[in-house]
Amino acid sequence: MDKITLHLDEARALSHQCLLANGCDDANAAATTDVMIAAEGDGCPSHGLFRLPGYVTALRSGRVDGRADPSIERIAGAVVRVDGRGGFAPLALVRGRQPLIEAARENGIAALSLAGIFHFAALWPETEAIAQEGLCALAVTASRSLVAPAGGTSALFGTNPMAFGWPRKDGPPMVFDQAVSVMAQGEVMIAAREGHELAPGVALDSEGRPTIDAKAAIEGVLLPFGGYKGSAIGIMIELLAAGLLGENFAFEASETTPNDGGPGRGGELMIAMDPARFGDAVGWLAHSEQFFERMLAQDGVRLPGDRRHANRARIMASGFSIPTALHENILHLTEAV
Amino acid sequence: MDKITLHLDEARALSHQCLLANGCDDANAAATTDVMIAAEGDGCPSHGLFRLPGYVTALRSGRVDGRADPSIERIAGAVVRVDGRGGFAPLALVRGRQPLIEAARENGIAALSLAGIFHFAALWPETEAIAQEGLCALAVTASRSLVAPAGGTSALFGTNPMAFGWPRKDGPPMVFDQAVSVMAQGEVMIAAREGHELAPGVALDSEGRPTIDAKAAIEGVLLPFGGYKGSAIGIMIELLAAGLLGENFAFEASETTPNDGGPGRGGELMIAMDPARFGDAVGWLAHSEQFFERMLAQDGVRLPGDRRHANRARIMASGFSIPTALHENILHLTEAV
Repeated sequence: MDKITLHLDEARALSHQCLLANGCDDANAAATTDVMIAAEGDGCPSHGLFRLPGYVTALRSGRVDGRADPSIERIAGAVVRVDGRGGFAPLALVRGRQPLIEAARENGIAALSLAGIFHFAALWPETEAIAQEGLCALAVTASRSLVAPAGGTSALFGTNPMAFGWPRKDGPPMVFDQAVSVMAQGEVMIAAREGHELAPGVALDSEGRPTIDAKAAIEGVLLPFGGYKGSAIGIMIELLAAGLLGENFAFEASETTPNDGGPGRGGELMIAMDPARFGDAVGWLAHSEQFFERMLAQDGVRLPGDRRHANRARIMASGFSIPTALHENILHLTEAV
Repeated sequence: MDKITLHLDEARALSHQCLLANGCDDANAAATTDVMIAAEGDGCPSHGLFRLPGYVTALRSGRVDGRADPSIERIAGAVVRVDGRGGFAPLALVRGRQPLIEAARENGIAALSLAGIFHFAALWPETEAIAQEGLCALAVTASRSLVAPAGGTSALFGTNPMAFGWPRKDGPPMVFDQAVSVMAQGEVMIAAREGHELAPGVALDSEGRPTIDAKAAIEGVLLPFGGYKGSAIGIMIELLAAGLLGENFAFEASETTPNDGGPGRGGELMIAMDPARFGDAVGWLAHSEQFFERMLAQDGVRLPGDRRHANRARIMASGFSIPTALHENILHLTEAV
């Protein structure tokens, strides 16, 4: 496959222009671009510019408001509600971040209840941003139905990522961000595009039979990681991101959104905790480093996110590559509005 | 194996007497007994009377104070701290429950930071108790090192259960409670006792080689469910139950506690959320039932906890059985102090 190398600044400008040309205002284009560029900068193409055509599809269909102006309200002592007003998630998250951090510092723990958003991005950039402020953060969102519950053969859960961030003493926070499916949908889409087989246990085909064919998996259903235990986590995420907030469950997002490659409407829950308010204000950071040291003393063990951090400096200096076809498509989407 | 059938009342009296005889006061004996009887009543022997000899071991070793009087303090607007003062977890949890519920109703979300406890029980009874009050609850605790991180061969994580509870419209809350290991340690211990083989992928032996021998697994190390994704959840639970609260990581509990079958000292984090304060005060309960309906419409799919609920009425009426040897051991532990 032909590839083209882009520097992060070029990629940022490319995405920003494309979103502006398709109806985003500057604030939405910038926030949405930032999360794609963060993904490319960490070497995670499945949440990078690969998503841009899907964002454009959702704008052109008219279901997402590229000029949405999210509103913020403290609806309970420790709950910040952001109404995304039908826009993409990133600007709503940027607007909610400081109010969440303030509420967590005030109360020890606080929640951000995000509704009325179209979420199509990685969760780790927003989780890392909270952890960089010295707080522990947990985030969940439900997407469209793509994953069967344990024992079933039909899609019910979204790929439903859960991200968790913890501040480190020296260096960036430890952050993991993982789908409830064995494999993220974006990775399966890339495997299909590049003709790779899937590992066994990743997916069922449209007849409910196990498959290693990535295209058949896209027609069929993904499986949760870890069997019924991963499935239970899928249930929890649906209830937190939809039931708790009054937003779409994945099955509702699927039923109300055409299957056009763009995101459906949903919610996201973020919980932030201030370790300085939980009983070990002085010791928690150094104490946690002892755990990380112990873990990394084992051969073959890595911390979640290490590969992303290792990619950062390299990609910052040398850029990253995307398929030429994707680059051309983005240029086309920018010009042919 | 010879078995003896006990009614729940008999079992409760048996456990209560045994704990009193070994140094518990009435409040600690009652609370600790309650969680074992709840497990037996739900058909989960691995957290039932099977644990009683371990509780007694910890009392007789002098490391647990059977007369501990847990203290409660609201250390931040939405954080309740319970110092278990070196007792078993159940009484600390009973004492913290109403303050946690009140803090969650006040603020929308609240946390219970439990330290100075020896946790050896199932998490679902305490999670269900919060959910029965109409709140959503999440609980995590770290135990002693028994589980290898993904890629490693040495124990680092505890079996680190995570429990989640959600209120239902008609009937008991949905609650799951699952170890970060593929199989709970109690289940492996019972498999070893009863001579059953383990499934592949459950454990490594003491040389770091995969094993299906339950006795070799007890000498070796358990594996996390779902590979590196379950391992990430193991990390999260260690950081929340130990790093956040200033309590022992599993490796610290292991290093400070003899391997005598009883629990080590640790912490527990419970988070409670009041769905009435998150933006869908009127609709959340009925809306969530639509998700459960959709899930249960699939053949072969069950909700977590359904088997436990199905066991309840039967065991309430007919009792349950334990090995005669365990019954005799409990009688012996009660008399021979």
